[in-house]
Amino acid sequence: MTTAARQIRDLSREEALDRLGSISLGRIVFTRNALPEIRPVNHLLDGHTVIIRSHLGAAIVSAAAERGVVVAYEADNLDPVTHLGWSVIVTGTAYLIREPAAIAHYQQRLRPWIARDMDYVIAIGADLVTGIELTAIR
Amino acid sequence: MTTAARQIRDLSREEALDRLGSISLGRIVFTRNALPEIRPVNHLLDGHTVIIRSHLGAAIVSAAAERGVVVAYEADNLDPVTHLGWSVIVTGTAYLIREPAAIAHYQQRLRPWIARDMDYVIAIGADLVTGIELTAIR
Repeated sequence: MTTAARQIRDLSREEALDRLGSISLGRIVFTRNALPEIRPVNHLLDGHTVIIRSHLGAAIVSAAAERGVVVAYEADNLDPVTHLGWSVIVTGTAYLIREPAAIAHYQQRLRPWIARDMDYVIAIGADLVTGIELTAIR
Repeated sequence: MTTAARQIRDLSREEALDRLGSISLGRIVFTRNALPEIRPVNHLLDGHTVIIRSHLGAAIVSAAAERGVVVAYEADNLDPVTHLGWSVIVTGTAYLIREPAAIAHYQQRLRPWIARDMDYVIAIGADLVTGIELTAIR
């Protein structure tokens, strides 16, 4: 990490969602047995909804199956050396997609990061969207 | 993301910590007001302890100040196109470093990702370490 002058800027909701939609890899954050959990996943943005596929067994999915569960989703594009770039965090209710045609639609467009036998399609509503961008001061 | 054949391998604890120590950017995951939270931070690995600096105000720190709080820490090195690479997740108790000499030592070695007026040095014990690596099958 360099010590060059840098500035932080808060992204607007639209800017943050644009950046989130520009990449396909992020991390879902949830609570299991009262402990914080995080897993890398692939995503796509469908309107204001983050769609992921997950094969975490009962972890996110069984909680989401009941009546929705609040999760956080983070994606970033940060330079490994300078650490300049952006990070976006979405917080919202996750729920299982159950309609077969919708499942088939998303399964065609989105591959799971880790392919295992069974996976689920999960939608995360972008209730709260925050983002920051770090840029070098020229 | 390509559809080339790939294989998943679980990393041993030592392999996972080696990879974590090879980079300096990750994400701390914690619970605030019963909701999952995640923030990008810089880290260094000191033995089996992850050290971060944070200026999240009272979020992680005030919880950690009391009697330690369980957090997760994730770092990865994943290709944005192929999504090959590795991800390591540490789960452990976070606590504030309070000894002035230790604070000064870590402040010299570790810059916060976002520099603000006040920051804290937080240690996360690597109680549970998991990691996976995705590689292409040649």
